Amino acid sequence: MKISDRMSNLKPSAIREILKTSIGTDIIAFSAGNPSADLFPSKELAKIAEELFEKDAAMALQYSVTEGYDPLRNQMKERMEKKYNISMEGNELIIVSGGQQGIDLAAKCVVNDGDVVVCEDPSFIGALNTFRSYNARLVGVPMDDEGMDIDKLEEVLKTEKNVKVIYTIPTFQNPMGVTLSMERRRRMYELAVKYDVLILEDSPYFELTYSGEVVPPIKTLDKTGHVLFAGSFSKIISPGIRVGFVIGPQELVSKMVVAKQGEDVHTNLFFMMAVSRYLERYDLDKHIEECRDVYRAKKDKMIECMEKYFDKRVSFTRPNGGLFIWCTLPEGCSGVELCEYTKDKKVSIVPGMAFTVAEKDCNAFRLNFSVPSMEQIEKGIALLGEAIDEYLKAKNL
Amino acid sequence: MKISDRMSNLKPSAIREILKTSIGTDIIAFSAGNPSADLFPSKELAKIAEELFEKDAAMALQYSVTEGYDPLRNQMKERMEKKYNISMEGNELIIVSGGQQGIDLAAKCVVNDGDVVVCEDPSFIGALNTFRSYNARLVGVPMDDEGMDIDKLEEVLKTEKNVKVIYTIPTFQNPMGVTLSMERRRRMYELAVKYDVLILEDSPYFELTYSGEVVPPIKTLDKTGHVLFAGSFSKIISPGIRVGFVIGPQELVSKMVVAKQGEDVHTNLFFMMAVSRYLERYDLDKHIEECRDVYRAKKDKMIECMEKYFDKRVSFTRPNGGLFIWCTLPEGCSGVELCEYTKDKKVSIVPGMAFTVAEKDCNAFRLNFSVPSMEQIEKGIALLGEAIDEYLKAKNL
Repeated sequence: MKISDRMSNLKPSAIREILKTSIGTDIIAFSAGNPSADLFPSKELAKIAEELFEKDAAMALQYSVTEGYDPLRNQMKERMEKKYNISMEGNELIIVSGGQQGIDLAAKCVVNDGDVVVCEDPSFIGALNTFRSYNARLVGVPMDDEGMDIDKLEEVLKTEKNVKVIYTIPTFQNPMGVTLSMERRRRMYELAVKYDVLILEDSPYFELTYSGEVVPPIKTLDKTGHVLFAGSFSKIISPGIRVGFVIGPQELVSKMVVAKQGEDVHTNLFFMMAVSRYLERYDLDKHIEECRDVYRAKKDKMIECMEKYFDKRVSFTRPNGGLFIWCTLPEGCSGVELCEYTKDKKVSIVPGMAFTVAEKDCNAFRLNFSVPSMEQIEKGIALLGEAIDEYLKAKNL
Repeated sequence: MKISDRMSNLKPSAIREILKTSIGTDIIAFSAGNPSADLFPSKELAKIAEELFEKDAAMALQYSVTEGYDPLRNQMKERMEKKYNISMEGNELIIVSGGQQGIDLAAKCVVNDGDVVVCEDPSFIGALNTFRSYNARLVGVPMDDEGMDIDKLEEVLKTEKNVKVIYTIPTFQNPMGVTLSMERRRRMYELAVKYDVLILEDSPYFELTYSGEVVPPIKTLDKTGHVLFAGSFSKIISPGIRVGFVIGPQELVSKMVVAKQGEDVHTNLFFMMAVSRYLERYDLDKHIEECRDVYRAKKDKMIECMEKYFDKRVSFTRPNGGLFIWCTLPEGCSGVELCEYTKDKKVSIVPGMAFTVAEKDCNAFRLNFSVPSMEQIEKGIALLGEAIDEYLKAKNL
């Protein structure tokens, strides 16, 4: 039995493999990408579930339509229109099985074998592997504190043939935590129109702003159907339920419905209904405010500890939201090598290599602050500081 | 924006579009593919859900591993090994988001552009569209009362190049309701080995036997890793939860895990845990026995009514299980034309065209007996008989 060409060279995501080994009660995990389980609105969902089973089981447990549960679609259309200024004119919103499925369906519907997907470098490996699974060729664009370097993006669009997608996580990027500035969003959109390329705006963290101004989604600029916005309930309600949504040009989204029909028929209806009722009866914005308060405190604590415990030659981003901080070691260092030292300290991090387009080692690593407790942050960052000191010493730096 | 080649010619499944229009309180629907909502074990699931929210919400609502919830995988391995004689040696079992995802992941991991997928003709359109979405070329093999014609299958395997998959629903086939005989299963497996082709054994109905002998899964014959078995909880617990499983050769299944990671990260964990607890605490076999009793009675009733109300020139299959009966009108008739007459009678059926590989009209249609009540069956089949009479009269037959 031969594996298909598209899948034969694809390996499991390095992070997910690392995650498997970093689950242990005595390990302080900064390697996760999870939201904090303390923040799941489980009491509210329990009440809703009870009622769904009592009154609506015949519907909630039955097959449904591929586009998703209509009331939820309408609630999200209204929310995204009113609160985030994303116009639904010429656009459609469907429910997908987590933001990841939005990326997958978009790739399936837009990318032919050998087409180019331009992405941030580093970027979210889960998305990069999805593009690879449709035989896309990835071209990475470097990042700085304001996100993707747009001059470099323009160069790529000028020189590469068959570019079909610009994949970006513009807000609190994974893994770097940085946000694409408004000025760059405008330029990115203009380039997408000029070169007729789809911007796939992957935005699972956009509701998690802790400080600074809220930068509007790129999708708010879209008058020409060049932006597909992928959102998720994973970071504000629960990731285990696998419910997300996409908003994009009607023609593309209706093809994505056909693709989704072949992938999983529809997203699990019980939780589409549960999320809909949650939005109806509870104040999502108030809940998000609580998440923000908890995560802001953790992020501030982590930054404070990093300033206290890290060698001054280690630089790091100072995100205004999201779940991640990106740390850069001095030149000549290796994130992978550092992991040997952090392992001894029972602290887990993700080496930068896991996020680079070329899958090459680099002198950076990613930290997550949403999962560890305040105490674990203090203790773990101190241990990580020691590991860094030992590593730098061993490198004669 | 250009839609990718693989998706540009793909249309939504005709049945799903028909289903959308056949939902109405005054219509008797024989067009569904749903299990009966009366049979969902919703009280049991409600109890389990309550407990999951109370004690295990932090886990059940969090991210999980792509392979699926381990206890459920182990329970299903044991069940399929002990009860259905499927050896796990050299095989792996993973949880997928409904049987449909099993088909999708298999296609993605095995089929290259232009490769051939051999399938029964007629067959389940949802699967055929999935193969098309990976640029497979479909070659249909005719059916009779014992399932796929194996001589014709051999001819195809001899003459076609790059055949990668034999797609079969061997037990209570959709749409025909027929079962592939044991003798033919053996021959199909031998051919798969000889030509090194994967048998994708799609078996969502295999636990729903109402009469006759249970024919063992093709997978029980597999000593060489040429069979992938796709199963589902959709027809015995609930389809809305989107939980299924596949069993297949380790190398293939581990690639399917990588593909699944890119599609939806994992199946919704809450219901994987719920199904696991259901299996642990309740007697699934007893529940299946109840489903069988209800469906057997409905099937018998439908056959009885068909014998009473249908023109004698209409022939039909007499399934030993599953959800469907396949009816054939006299030569020269059209399933699509008949629908004009059934519409007036407020009865919905699915014309055979929706299942043929060439998507051409034919003189057949599919009936579902799991959804309508006994009363609806009596009334609806009588109305359908009238519609057939009127149609045959209009055709001067």
